[in-house]
Amino acid sequence: MTDVTDKPGAGLTEADLAALVDEVGAAEVVLDPSAMEAYRWDWSRFPGAGMPCAVVRPRDAGQVQAAVRWAARRGIPIVPRGAGTGLAGGSNAVEGGLTISLDRMAGIEIDPATRTAVVEPGALNAAVKQAAREHGLWYPPDPSSYEICSIGGNIATNAGGLCCVKYGVTTDYVLGLDVVLADGRLITLGGRRIKDVAGLSLIKLFVGSEGTLGIVTKVTLRLVPSPPPAATLVATFPTARAAAEAVVAMGRQLRPSLVEFMDQRAVNITEDHLRMGLDRSAGGLLVVQCDSPGAARTEEIEAVEAICVSAGATEVFATDDHDEGEAFLGARRAFFPACEGRGALLVEDVGVPIPALPDLIDGIAEIARRHDTDIPVVAHAGDGNTHPNLIYDATDPAARERAERAFSEIMELAIGLGGTITGEHGVGRAKVGSLAAQLGPDVMELTRTIKDALDPQGILNPSCAI
Amino acid sequence: MTDVTDKPGAGLTEADLAALVDEVGAAEVVLDPSAMEAYRWDWSRFPGAGMPCAVVRPRDAGQVQAAVRWAARRGIPIVPRGAGTGLAGGSNAVEGGLTISLDRMAGIEIDPATRTAVVEPGALNAAVKQAAREHGLWYPPDPSSYEICSIGGNIATNAGGLCCVKYGVTTDYVLGLDVVLADGRLITLGGRRIKDVAGLSLIKLFVGSEGTLGIVTKVTLRLVPSPPPAATLVATFPTARAAAEAVVAMGRQLRPSLVEFMDQRAVNITEDHLRMGLDRSAGGLLVVQCDSPGAARTEEIEAVEAICVSAGATEVFATDDHDEGEAFLGARRAFFPACEGRGALLVEDVGVPIPALPDLIDGIAEIARRHDTDIPVVAHAGDGNTHPNLIYDATDPAARERAERAFSEIMELAIGLGGTITGEHGVGRAKVGSLAAQLGPDVMELTRTIKDALDPQGILNPSCAI
Repeated sequence: MTDVTDKPGAGLTEADLAALVDEVGAAEVVLDPSAMEAYRWDWSRFPGAGMPCAVVRPRDAGQVQAAVRWAARRGIPIVPRGAGTGLAGGSNAVEGGLTISLDRMAGIEIDPATRTAVVEPGALNAAVKQAAREHGLWYPPDPSSYEICSIGGNIATNAGGLCCVKYGVTTDYVLGLDVVLADGRLITLGGRRIKDVAGLSLIKLFVGSEGTLGIVTKVTLRLVPSPPPAATLVATFPTARAAAEAVVAMGRQLRPSLVEFMDQRAVNITEDHLRMGLDRSAGGLLVVQCDSPGAARTEEIEAVEAICVSAGATEVFATDDHDEGEAFLGARRAFFPACEGRGALLVEDVGVPIPALPDLIDGIAEIARRHDTDIPVVAHAGDGNTHPNLIYDATDPAARERAERAFSEIMELAIGLGGTITGEHGVGRAKVGSLAAQLGPDVMELTRTIKDALDPQGILNPSCAI
Repeated sequence: MTDVTDKPGAGLTEADLAALVDEVGAAEVVLDPSAMEAYRWDWSRFPGAGMPCAVVRPRDAGQVQAAVRWAARRGIPIVPRGAGTGLAGGSNAVEGGLTISLDRMAGIEIDPATRTAVVEPGALNAAVKQAAREHGLWYPPDPSSYEICSIGGNIATNAGGLCCVKYGVTTDYVLGLDVVLADGRLITLGGRRIKDVAGLSLIKLFVGSEGTLGIVTKVTLRLVPSPPPAATLVATFPTARAAAEAVVAMGRQLRPSLVEFMDQRAVNITEDHLRMGLDRSAGGLLVVQCDSPGAARTEEIEAVEAICVSAGATEVFATDDHDEGEAFLGARRAFFPACEGRGALLVEDVGVPIPALPDLIDGIAEIARRHDTDIPVVAHAGDGNTHPNLIYDATDPAARERAERAFSEIMELAIGLGGTITGEHGVGRAKVGSLAAQLGPDVMELTRTIKDALDPQGILNPSCAI
């Protein structure tokens, strides 16, 4: 784990901070330590967050540029921050660094003619969806936190979600970006055009770069027509392996719009919480939705049902009713609240090729036993992206240490299965030390080459950069 | 237009070439000038192709590495080449440079369990589609040249096609890449996993980089289940503007799988060739397909029909019959053959936001008049991506000059409408001089920074790099 121990802001003078206020604006600079506290951590509460020298809350790109220039001249680290809902410590403050919170830049403009949204980074994902809906349009990417996470953060992590098994992830919807570079220059990439291959794919390079290459100040998003209503199926299986086999078979024939998995431990934790009659003996549970238009969605759900039965499902329930479907999806969504009160939570995010899901889930169970840590698993199974959730007693240092060892071993397991240490949450601080194990030395060097070229001082989100 | 006048290969000795043969393999090195002729040009016949010092036709990544190392040690430019079907001079040889043709590396392996294809760059797009089909799977990207273009070239240009209005472009299907870097190192990016946000989006950076950052030697492609059959509609409109308005309205409500446009001049050239009874008086013609499953496709086509009628269509014909639909699509596909014999052809590839299509088409007609050049327009209208085709008498230097001026002015027009100089063909040699007009100085500098970081000697496809 990375710990930023140097304190680059320590040498700052009163005059430096006065210059920040002067150059950015008094109303946009937070210097009071108690007020800054709210900007130090993301949801992971990953340790190592420092106390910033200041937090800037710009209202426009010009103020972002001014803040970056102020920091660049002094070699001060910069941490861009969206809604702070990250799960990898990616927006945790750096000791003595400048945190730039984009929460006040939250404008949304929908252009129905080009089917685009021009959005500021602080706009919440749910607000973009809502604004699009008013025009009969849809912004698909739907991280589970969509009601409270920001588009800027979604872009920083290339966020996924539940519907991306059919509709793709954030990068698939970004047509344009305004980015403030490490030297304070503002560039505009792309625009309201759907296809554009002029020059390098720079937009795609910034998406998923977790604030280490630049700070996004405006986004042009592609919208699509609202999807038809979905039919929903819930199936329980004797083993996680049987459920995963059903997922593989579905993907070969159908394009479901949602394929969620819960392992036995996740089912039991949810049932403890909801008491809705979930089968506690099930080795795996799937919630599947299909949203093809018209009668086709019923045919698709019937095909999903046949696949589940032939994979050995012990119980299958399908419905074309929206509210009934949402209730079952609610069981999956209730898992995280159900974990509350059980201890501290480390949310993992490993992914594997889909056929390796059973081996991953079995391997996680073995790691849980060996390290005596409770690790229920939920997964965006259609993408092979799992969230093992390490629950431990935060007041017990030995338990914490066991959980952290398990956390590392789960990443090693995923890499060994041809997978990734992060499918959608990002590397952040939590996994920067594990990145080399996945990427290898040459790709790490290439990454460093690009980082150095774009940010020679290394001031942009340094705790998340290799 | 770029003309490479220096001759970096001129200082090469017999010993240098003997070393190439020795290091790569005698069977893989072509030194005979008449044999090399076939590797000098792409389909654009864009002027400026040089005579390479040698052509290498490697059989594996190791031989690509050996060839790159040989060239890197000597500072010799390298031009990677796929099937040579490019339309922007992107694989035209550099005088005295080393052309690396990937045509012998054409392996295809389908893995139905992970729904992926592992493909060598020389494999043809159509061969990948066929191999996937044998497993009930589909590789969607479909450039018009899909029967003869290679996956490596598709990746170099981030190729689009007809179905990308619904199914996306090449970059959306690339899960993994093996790339030989400018110093000969071979890196592996991504793999058989659908979601992966560990590290920078390097795969996406290489896709669309036109051989200026590295040479792809292996690709992992995402496959999807075969789509249902499509219903087809053909509609004629009094004006191009009316047709474009129908396209805008469709996009707001529906997700057609194909939306192709032909202007009046393109309709007439095609009708001259086919004599199938197309309406010569039509200002614009649309061919639309919908491929939602089951009865929904008929409902969608009916909705398309209603939109066309309400946009002022003079004639609309819809069919659910596959062969009949293919016949109408055939009219669109017959346009390029219909141009043959009419003169030399410069194929443009400009794109605009969809509502700007009518202004683009009107503007192109005005440019055609002013420069006395025949410029029929076809378009992937659902994406706002047009192909104005400049037909001129190659034996008349004045006609050629007028066509080239028109070519430049069409790019300026597209940029002025918020568009791009290339939607899917790439920059190549043909447009490298026009790139700055679209991207502006800061983005050009950022592009150069990345190029310099990855290829400090500037040896990778230098005529296509800024």
